[in-house]
Amino acid sequence: MTNTPDSSIGLPRDQIDTPALLVDLDALEFNIDKLARHFQDTGKQLRPHTKSHKTPAIAHRQLAAGAIGITCAKVGEAEVMADAGIDDILIANEVVGTAKIRRLMQLAARCDIMVAVDAQDNLAALAAAAGEAGVRPRVLVEVDIGHQRCGASPGSCAVELSRLAASARHLRFSGLMGYQGHVVDLEDREQRESGTRQCLQRLVQTREEVERAGIEVAIVSTSATGDYYISTSYDGVTEVQAGSYALMDAAYAKLDLGFRNALSVLTMVTSRPTPDRVITDAGLKSVTPEHGMPEIKSSPSSTFDAVNLEVHALSEEHGRIRTLQGDSDLKVGDLLEFIPGHGCTTVNLHDELLAMRGDRVEEVWNIAARGKVR
Amino acid sequence: MTNTPDSSIGLPRDQIDTPALLVDLDALEFNIDKLARHFQDTGKQLRPHTKSHKTPAIAHRQLAAGAIGITCAKVGEAEVMADAGIDDILIANEVVGTAKIRRLMQLAARCDIMVAVDAQDNLAALAAAAGEAGVRPRVLVEVDIGHQRCGASPGSCAVELSRLAASARHLRFSGLMGYQGHVVDLEDREQRESGTRQCLQRLVQTREEVERAGIEVAIVSTSATGDYYISTSYDGVTEVQAGSYALMDAAYAKLDLGFRNALSVLTMVTSRPTPDRVITDAGLKSVTPEHGMPEIKSSPSSTFDAVNLEVHALSEEHGRIRTLQGDSDLKVGDLLEFIPGHGCTTVNLHDELLAMRGDRVEEVWNIAARGKVR
Repeated sequence: MTNTPDSSIGLPRDQIDTPALLVDLDALEFNIDKLARHFQDTGKQLRPHTKSHKTPAIAHRQLAAGAIGITCAKVGEAEVMADAGIDDILIANEVVGTAKIRRLMQLAARCDIMVAVDAQDNLAALAAAAGEAGVRPRVLVEVDIGHQRCGASPGSCAVELSRLAASARHLRFSGLMGYQGHVVDLEDREQRESGTRQCLQRLVQTREEVERAGIEVAIVSTSATGDYYISTSYDGVTEVQAGSYALMDAAYAKLDLGFRNALSVLTMVTSRPTPDRVITDAGLKSVTPEHGMPEIKSSPSSTFDAVNLEVHALSEEHGRIRTLQGDSDLKVGDLLEFIPGHGCTTVNLHDELLAMRGDRVEEVWNIAARGKVR
Repeated sequence: MTNTPDSSIGLPRDQIDTPALLVDLDALEFNIDKLARHFQDTGKQLRPHTKSHKTPAIAHRQLAAGAIGITCAKVGEAEVMADAGIDDILIANEVVGTAKIRRLMQLAARCDIMVAVDAQDNLAALAAAAGEAGVRPRVLVEVDIGHQRCGASPGSCAVELSRLAASARHLRFSGLMGYQGHVVDLEDREQRESGTRQCLQRLVQTREEVERAGIEVAIVSTSATGDYYISTSYDGVTEVQAGSYALMDAAYAKLDLGFRNALSVLTMVTSRPTPDRVITDAGLKSVTPEHGMPEIKSSPSSTFDAVNLEVHALSEEHGRIRTLQGDSDLKVGDLLEFIPGHGCTTVNLHDELLAMRGDRVEEVWNIAARGKVR
């Protein structure tokens, strides 16, 4: 039994071959509904970032709940989402190079694509390729609002690039984008919120300067799961790119945002070499470590005391657990669930997501954009 | 152009869509040949660990160079290698659970499979399943020789388990296995070598105890790329599981073992927001960080000064590079190569490996065991 899609539907949790990536449908639906209601209440638009789940089935649920479109990180993800019938797609990064710009224009011929730009040469290359392909994609000027990654500097640089974009043939200038990636996941709420406000101030100020130059700004797109509720209080912001809220992870859980954890890696105990040591079959090749070790999920039906257990290390194929005190009753063959430290990169290791209703597999979803490295 | 296998063959490096995983064939062949000659000279056997490359095309080259068989980390990898026509396969971990033991026995029906065992219950489950399936797989008793992960304790525990394995119906007891994962990659040569010797001492001593109990030990399998040359000097050791030597990575390069770096991630500069900041399109979803940031490969044809550049952070889709002093001449669209900190987990993010002869794609290899999480 290899958890093939057809054979897994209806399977009870204790018959799933491990490791396996699970999504709790009740939690997912709660999260999608909670954020959708916030956007209905504030009148802003939600454009969920699908890099977090890479799964068309989840993107369709977000759109059905009212999202205006989706965000992707790269052309390969956007191709998958377009294949799944999604029309309004922002690629929230610069697209460069002949091969990839050609793919972007092929996409623009079949859906309403919008792309970030932060340099004049790239803008010229996009315009030339669009003209050649007979398409007219939308562009957002990316502004570096404090993250110090990509983006034109706020002020005259961003205004000048917007002016060029607005006058470029074959492109439709639609507005601005900025991402405060250095503050969105800070655990300290005051630091996170004040950091976000500083960044958003730069973004809306740039909007005002662009508009003063006589250029219409239809879209100002920004923010993430950790600070969406701040962005929606700014007049100058029109839409938010939150992504992690749908599945969540152990790092985001610490921010206490009111979303439920929907994601876990089901893993089996494979060795009990000593009473205080538990080894399972989920390691670095099924759960990522860069935002911290996975946490062990407790559930009412657990036969073990999750709070007495700690994942202290991950080998490539081993989760290494120790007890905080005393011994553990876990036996070889017992099942645990790991809540990943970082959901986005953990999902990226798996080809399929088992959608669980309670203890049973209700659907099997293809993580179709997994592996699209380009 | 999405680097589909057919379209990529013959492509020059500067037309490859990025990010892309490359293997330098000259370096790979050098590494495979160098280690093969060591094993010819010492009369020991090499059973390369294929978890590092997950690529049948590389496994076949290792076998053609004289390897006795291969090592896999899990059933899913072994299934892929068996599909590729490889017969002698060690799964160097415990295989537990009804679903996976059933898959193991299906494998045993079509190739010569050998599996690690460290507990009596698991041994009994394997024997029962083998009997039911009408197969007779080989087993190695895993001994915890100091790593404190899996494995029976050296001494009476290991002897008793070996005795049970040797008398188990439907199983063929073949010997012992031990892995000193806590010392094999230590950069300090003296610490690494003395640590390995301590562990190997426990392993060969266990061998002697098992033999004193009247049980034949045909195989003692151990070690890795960082200490293979120590293991081959021990009379009691018969074979070595080195894997990383074929492709190598930035962490292993620090050990100065005489292998050449064969693996890189080709990445394109996507943004030059400031003179001292370079952003590329390879981030956490194409190169892993847990053994340190990737290093930037210099080459004679480089138009930039690699030693003045440092990858200081990876976002999901961005390599963030800064200069150590002054500015960089790199332009948007320029190509760089990242040498991954950890090759095994980086390969695990990619579906294909472009096999380069000089600056041209000679072959495209399917990383067929990628995504086999189980």
